[in-house]
Amino acid sequence: MSSDLRITFLGTGTSVGVPMIGCDCPTCRSTDPRDKRCRSSIYVETPESSWVVDTGPDFRYQCLRAGVRKMDAAVYTHAHMDHVTGFDELRRFTIPEDHWMPIYAHPATLAVLERMFDYAFNGENRYRGYLKPFPKPIHGKFHLGETTLTPLPVLHGKVETNGYLLERGGRKLCAYIPDAKELLPATMAALEGVDTLIIDALRRTPHPTHLTFDESLAIVETVAPREAWFTHFTCEIRHAVEEPTLPEGVRLAYDGLVLEWS
Amino acid sequence: MSSDLRITFLGTGTSVGVPMIGCDCPTCRSTDPRDKRCRSSIYVETPESSWVVDTGPDFRYQCLRAGVRKMDAAVYTHAHMDHVTGFDELRRFTIPEDHWMPIYAHPATLAVLERMFDYAFNGENRYRGYLKPFPKPIHGKFHLGETTLTPLPVLHGKVETNGYLLERGGRKLCAYIPDAKELLPATMAALEGVDTLIIDALRRTPHPTHLTFDESLAIVETVAPREAWFTHFTCEIRHAVEEPTLPEGVRLAYDGLVLEWS
Repeated sequence: MSSDLRITFLGTGTSVGVPMIGCDCPTCRSTDPRDKRCRSSIYVETPESSWVVDTGPDFRYQCLRAGVRKMDAAVYTHAHMDHVTGFDELRRFTIPEDHWMPIYAHPATLAVLERMFDYAFNGENRYRGYLKPFPKPIHGKFHLGETTLTPLPVLHGKVETNGYLLERGGRKLCAYIPDAKELLPATMAALEGVDTLIIDALRRTPHPTHLTFDESLAIVETVAPREAWFTHFTCEIRHAVEEPTLPEGVRLAYDGLVLEWS
Repeated sequence: MSSDLRITFLGTGTSVGVPMIGCDCPTCRSTDPRDKRCRSSIYVETPESSWVVDTGPDFRYQCLRAGVRKMDAAVYTHAHMDHVTGFDELRRFTIPEDHWMPIYAHPATLAVLERMFDYAFNGENRYRGYLKPFPKPIHGKFHLGETTLTPLPVLHGKVETNGYLLERGGRKLCAYIPDAKELLPATMAALEGVDTLIIDALRRTPHPTHLTFDESLAIVETVAPREAWFTHFTCEIRHAVEEPTLPEGVRLAYDGLVLEWS
């Protein structure tokens, strides 16, 4: 790769995806590929290391679509179903080398993964082909290759949730916060000077555990990044209708979008 | 619908699907749509009731692809990941009616679902949009509309696993056994006189917990159904290569295949 950091949006949809099963709204019936949203996830590539942030139910399909062949670790934001149920599909990245996949997550998120996928964590069934997770509880900054990841705790209903700040060479290149209702003061401080902010903007109408367009726009105004990308949309958001309404420097992410920093 | 019983194959692949992430074999690179296999599942329609057997990771995509809009119940064969991780996507069939979705499974399978998806079963978070499962532990024959389902216990590694016999009007129309290494004598007896047998035939080469082509052909010879369909294939099985080698009356299922009985 020619860039230092490359992010591919594997998915930009909310928990039930877009289109939703059984929905006939204009977005769910749209033929615009930007309106077809797998569950939110990004794939991060650097010269030294590649990892995914969240493995929702679409993870296998997302990897095939994006041609993902290398996975050195998995990082989780939180343990809601749309971010974790694809966990077992990580097994394809531990074959044939049979290496243990580092799983970076808040201890509460790891506890859910360990409960849901007990067969992978319980020390039995260690035969070839089974996923061998190596739990890496997050208690502060950590490193994947030369990238520093800082967990950004956010409020998102009852579940412990992190966004992540990605820094290389002392530069705050990007922050990824796909699920949040409110950013804590420490998180707002950590975002100061970030180049690119990727943030939850579920829909226009209020939601008890997700940021709306207006709420996220207010955060963008305070943080003042070079550019901001909204993500994690319901079908209330039709790409071609909504994007033109946004201020300069704020865009809507879509599945397959690639961002690069050099 | 014009038929009494209609089965749509939502998926005919094994745990990692076909194509597999990172695989360059001829099947995984095949452009034959019959070689593109989601995880094994069937959707069953009768004039009175419709249900799915197993909800693996591809469940949402499978429903969208097959245009599934009605789901009165979910039935499970066993609790391996490729059969259960799509469980939460059933929520789309409990909106807006907010009805409780009957979940039919062996008590051991229900226990895994209850552990994995505790938030759905624990009585909290009962707000609109959340899945409300109604556990229906299987202890013998049960009925969905006018169809009688008989659990067919099979040996499949360490996990409790059922196939299902579907009877209407006293006629044994179909048996579905997607995961098995060995059929118990009582199951072989129950299959006597079945019209159509759908059965696991993972691949040509031996596997510790799945039937091979030769093993399944021997079962078909003993049961002697009118027709048999193999399912749950790895990428070792390329449709156009393997199907012509099978005896008359034995076919390879593929995603999207529809079988009907009137």
